[in-house]
Amino acid sequence: MKSIGALVFPGFETLDLFGPLEFFGWLPAEFSITTVSENPGYVTCRSGQRVAVDCLLSESPDFDLILVPGGPGTPVESPNEAINDWIRAASKKADIVMSVCTGSALLARAGVLDGHKATTNKMEFNWAIQFGPNVDWVGKARWIEDGKFFTSSGVSAGMDMSLAVISHILGRKTAKHVAKCAEYSWTEDATSDPFAIQHGV
Amino acid sequence: MKSIGALVFPGFETLDLFGPLEFFGWLPAEFSITTVSENPGYVTCRSGQRVAVDCLLSESPDFDLILVPGGPGTPVESPNEAINDWIRAASKKADIVMSVCTGSALLARAGVLDGHKATTNKMEFNWAIQFGPNVDWVGKARWIEDGKFFTSSGVSAGMDMSLAVISHILGRKTAKHVAKCAEYSWTEDATSDPFAIQHGV
Repeated sequence: MKSIGALVFPGFETLDLFGPLEFFGWLPAEFSITTVSENPGYVTCRSGQRVAVDCLLSESPDFDLILVPGGPGTPVESPNEAINDWIRAASKKADIVMSVCTGSALLARAGVLDGHKATTNKMEFNWAIQFGPNVDWVGKARWIEDGKFFTSSGVSAGMDMSLAVISHILGRKTAKHVAKCAEYSWTEDATSDPFAIQHGV
Repeated sequence: MKSIGALVFPGFETLDLFGPLEFFGWLPAEFSITTVSENPGYVTCRSGQRVAVDCLLSESPDFDLILVPGGPGTPVESPNEAINDWIRAASKKADIVMSVCTGSALLARAGVLDGHKATTNKMEFNWAIQFGPNVDWVGKARWIEDGKFFTSSGVSAGMDMSLAVISHILGRKTAKHVAKCAEYSWTEDATSDPFAIQHGV
């Protein structure tokens, strides 16, 4: 059983979180999921639903995997040292660090992507990369795997990346089975990125 | 501003709800979203996150659109008369009734799909259609639009269908813009259904 710590903050992008969690959620014998946030109670995602916080940043155990979503709350949280401290500590302990969309701006701001290849949302590419002057940013990529870091572009890419992580841990057959059960059309090619062109990256 | 009532119940399929809500959530000036459930507090989705209930079934206002997800909680809720009553009343008042995956089994059980074309999840197709002997079930369809009813297959199809609903209400340009902003690869062809073949429907 591997533990997943999923960071949530006000204004996280709904599908950046729930896309990946859908797929990990099909394998309850393999993955346990904990939402982690700065304050107790609920956080509200972009689309307005209130999601319960399972664990405080200040009381966080170590996790095998962490997931950092992006969204309109990212610029607000970028200077939040409680989040930056958690990202640094949790990334050090985790075997796999995932981000979706501008979640990689939070990883970059915390310094954990320094010296690594990474990608991010394409609509906000130029905004996000300023937080990682020492990151090797890749403009055209659905997602990038570099060591323990799996950073993805927007919502489709985040879902596809999470299935790649399941494939990495449990094999492609299991990832394909999960996609089939959920009836999700998995794009397995990490280099397929139509949004880089659409957003002029 | 159009109101959306999104039914939630224990064990609803995570992406059946949050996929469509992601896209409606990009248009906060056009859509307001309310989660509706039988009991107060929160409900837990398949992947284990607790989502707050905004409004009780028993206190539900009329909505312009309703959204009914499927998931492992569907068989439990199918004989629930509180849900069936709400679906009947809410469907009568709504301009658009949406279901994802086995959510259409709940619509069928409540009788609102009688005489209409509809589709459902392909892995559970034979289970779902038993609830609607008077429904014209379509085996191979990403989603089916028949009058006010938009019924879709699994999670990819649900997201694609919700963008079709946005296109229906606000025009294709707006739906394409939302998909581009979220960086979602929208399959616009309602007849494209690889899962019918994969699941032998």
